[in-house]
Amino acid sequence: MRRDARDRMALSLVVEPGDPRLRALLTDLEPGAVLDALRRGPSLSRGGVPAAWRERVRDIDKRADAALARAAQAGLRWIAPGDVGWPTSLDELDLADDRGGVAGAPLGLWVRGRGDLARVAARSVAVVGARDCTTYGAEVASELAADVADAGFTVVSGAAFGIDACAHRGALALGRPTVAVLAGGADVDYPRAHAALLSRIADDGLVISEQPPGQLPLKSQFLSRNRLIAALSLGTVVIEAAARSGSLNTLHWADQLGRSTMGVPGPVTSAMSMGVHEAVRGGEAVLVTSGQQVVEELSGLGADEAVGPERPATAFDALPHGAQRVIDALSWNESRMIEQLASTARLSRGEVRRALALLVRRGFAARTEGGWSLVRRADLG
Amino acid sequence: MRRDARDRMALSLVVEPGDPRLRALLTDLEPGAVLDALRRGPSLSRGGVPAAWRERVRDIDKRADAALARAAQAGLRWIAPGDVGWPTSLDELDLADDRGGVAGAPLGLWVRGRGDLARVAARSVAVVGARDCTTYGAEVASELAADVADAGFTVVSGAAFGIDACAHRGALALGRPTVAVLAGGADVDYPRAHAALLSRIADDGLVISEQPPGQLPLKSQFLSRNRLIAALSLGTVVIEAAARSGSLNTLHWADQLGRSTMGVPGPVTSAMSMGVHEAVRGGEAVLVTSGQQVVEELSGLGADEAVGPERPATAFDALPHGAQRVIDALSWNESRMIEQLASTARLSRGEVRRALALLVRRGFAARTEGGWSLVRRADLG
Repeated sequence: MRRDARDRMALSLVVEPGDPRLRALLTDLEPGAVLDALRRGPSLSRGGVPAAWRERVRDIDKRADAALARAAQAGLRWIAPGDVGWPTSLDELDLADDRGGVAGAPLGLWVRGRGDLARVAARSVAVVGARDCTTYGAEVASELAADVADAGFTVVSGAAFGIDACAHRGALALGRPTVAVLAGGADVDYPRAHAALLSRIADDGLVISEQPPGQLPLKSQFLSRNRLIAALSLGTVVIEAAARSGSLNTLHWADQLGRSTMGVPGPVTSAMSMGVHEAVRGGEAVLVTSGQQVVEELSGLGADEAVGPERPATAFDALPHGAQRVIDALSWNESRMIEQLASTARLSRGEVRRALALLVRRGFAARTEGGWSLVRRADLG
Repeated sequence: MRRDARDRMALSLVVEPGDPRLRALLTDLEPGAVLDALRRGPSLSRGGVPAAWRERVRDIDKRADAALARAAQAGLRWIAPGDVGWPTSLDELDLADDRGGVAGAPLGLWVRGRGDLARVAARSVAVVGARDCTTYGAEVASELAADVADAGFTVVSGAAFGIDACAHRGALALGRPTVAVLAGGADVDYPRAHAALLSRIADDGLVISEQPPGQLPLKSQFLSRNRLIAALSLGTVVIEAAARSGSLNTLHWADQLGRSTMGVPGPVTSAMSMGVHEAVRGGEAVLVTSGQQVVEELSGLGADEAVGPERPATAFDALPHGAQRVIDALSWNESRMIEQLASTARLSRGEVRRALALLVRRGFAARTEGGWSLVRRADLG
């Protein structure tokens, strides 16, 4: 395993994935450097470092080896940015705002299944919704998922009871791959009753998680998991969601990431459709009534380019808007400080930090003495 | 009866109400002058005059007397622009484009029931939808109509089977007035099975029609009737409509008239909700799920001002945009031709003609030798 990938995995055992403080640290330091700093002591950041992190870092090599051994036994592998199969769409999470105490791209992912995640997820749509869905919702979810799968889209969901399971099954019924993003470890069958379903998903598609093998899902981890579902997909469709449901949380992440957001209406007499109707009324989701309309909505959002032999956009064009502005503010010749970049790009310092994190990861920018500068690349036209 | 009101009634027996050619004639001539011209011969307009009109005008006095006698017996009265109780909202139809061979404000209305139509309809909402509605649609229509009626809105609909009837009944159940706009004569119980319903509507509210007493509804008259439902109301709510349903026609009229347009979603598995979902997707209707949301949507659209003791907007502010531009282009001192007005106001000649028709009707402008000019009024501030 590459050094950086292993550092990231180790770090994910120390810091809760999705912790906004982690993103802040990674703006300035490489994952290995964060580990070193944690090992050295409390001077890592002005606000101090949680005691739990310093405690967990003490035996980190032993714990990382144990995680790898457990993963090998369960048939899991770790992939991280820079690895073949890493979906760079996830990196865009570094540019999104915090939401409910969650932020940032995952350090890496544990993967169950043989497929190449980047390829499988390149043309994908998240189909999510209520656990306690109605028979109407279940029927619509199965059918819609089957239709988008039939059109060549990978269905991404959370393997929960209700809409999630129907969405996965709709795709599997057509023999199409589907991706389950779990809140606990990728080897932990949760809910337990979905052990067979998860096994089938791993056979034809992938079961993934940013949590270590064996981790039972905590409540907060469902929320941090939602950001991965949204970021991995070109768009998110919500089918049945009560007011303030967790599925709306996924929709909000998708919205913030500039992904397509869609909602399937239902009877106004059904509490299970209230959240969807509110999202449509509020302009947070487009109303869709069929898989075909989902496909129409996603065409032109990279859905077609992703499978084609050529990608017309340059690597620059593929960057989020904020990152493009930071590139414009950076120089080839001289180092620039974050304050200076923020002023030139008219962004907040936090936005600049997040943009820089993405630019470094994608090889556009580098930390230099006294600040940041552009890296010379051929594909910046 | 005022001379102009009787002329309008007589003219409605000669020319099919909603005929776009009638609107064109009324731009240049008063209703009495149109009758005179039809009596005189074929030189009325460049395109000639339909033979049927000339035929019908021959014994028009006798036929007008017969209509009035029949109306008196059935308890109908005729109201026209200028009469107490005339809802000026209907005049705005003169500014809307033709749709399906229908155009223009009604010449007047036959009214069954004691109420003052302008007052009853001042704060009103159209609730329309499929004849062959589902039990879901019927339930939602009754409840939504009851809720908006309870909030002080008059429910306007077409007294058809299905959604229309449920909407009227929802209002009646709360003892609130409701207005039925019929495609045939206001004394013709159509559908026959709704004789008792129409009688109750006339007791507590009003049954109205632009068609003469005794007229059985023709298919085309349902389409021309829809424009009156839309124009009379501050907004139109569609509850269940199959693709290309007549209820969508009402929605389109409302949209063109700048009224609020709303749609209640339903199961995507129901063909009866397809038309509504398409309208929401296309941005032609706002999604609403309850009477309360309808009321919210209408507040700020004159719904509140109409019942308050004072109307903050001037008469000028209350005019449609196109008519305001024509006012700006008109002069107090000199006559201006339609060509000249069109050029100054940057409108088509047709738009100017329709705006002038409205302005004359509302007393803002007058035909003068050599063109049109403003009429001096105190309330133009």
